[in-house]
Amino acid sequence: FFKPSVGRRSLELASKINTKVELENPKVVTMTQLAPGEKKVFCRCWQSGTFPLCDGAHMKHNEATGDNVGPLIISNPKPSK
Amino acid sequence: FFKPSVGRRSLELASKINTKVELENPKVVTMTQLAPGEKKVFCRCWQSGTFPLCDGAHMKHNEATGDNVGPLIISNPKPSK
Repeated sequence: FFKPSVGRRSLELASKINTKVELENPKVVTMTQLAPGEKKVFCRCWQSGTFPLCDGAHMKHNEATGDNVGPLIISNPKPSK
Repeated sequence: FFKPSVGRRSLELASKINTKVELENPKVVTMTQLAPGEKKVFCRCWQSGTFPLCDGAHMKHNEATGDNVGPLIISNPKPSK
């Protein structure tokens, strides 16, 4: 897809998302688990300084590009007593 | 950052990541939980047809752009018997 949107200073050619995280890795897949009752916030903008966890970097990215990406929040149910 | 890489037909201006998912939503945040023993694969390339879950769309994206993004796999420990 090609949709120049000069107003927002960004071209929407198909372009890379990740320009920071493990660039030498052919595919960055994260495998993890959460204990019962545990909560984690995961980055989906690939700009976080604490990747794979979110550090709020998506806000700066969205402002610079007019994007609307946000994190994935996993909060596991507490173990039933 | 501006790093034209004409060889891969993509410009690396700061550009949007999400061109498909809930475009009318100012910020797409996903909140979910997994039961003990449950496993889910979450999309981080914003191209999946089954967003927020991964459908493998990152492979086509990586090929088209030279990117290296992959999914987030959460597999919760099974409840101890």
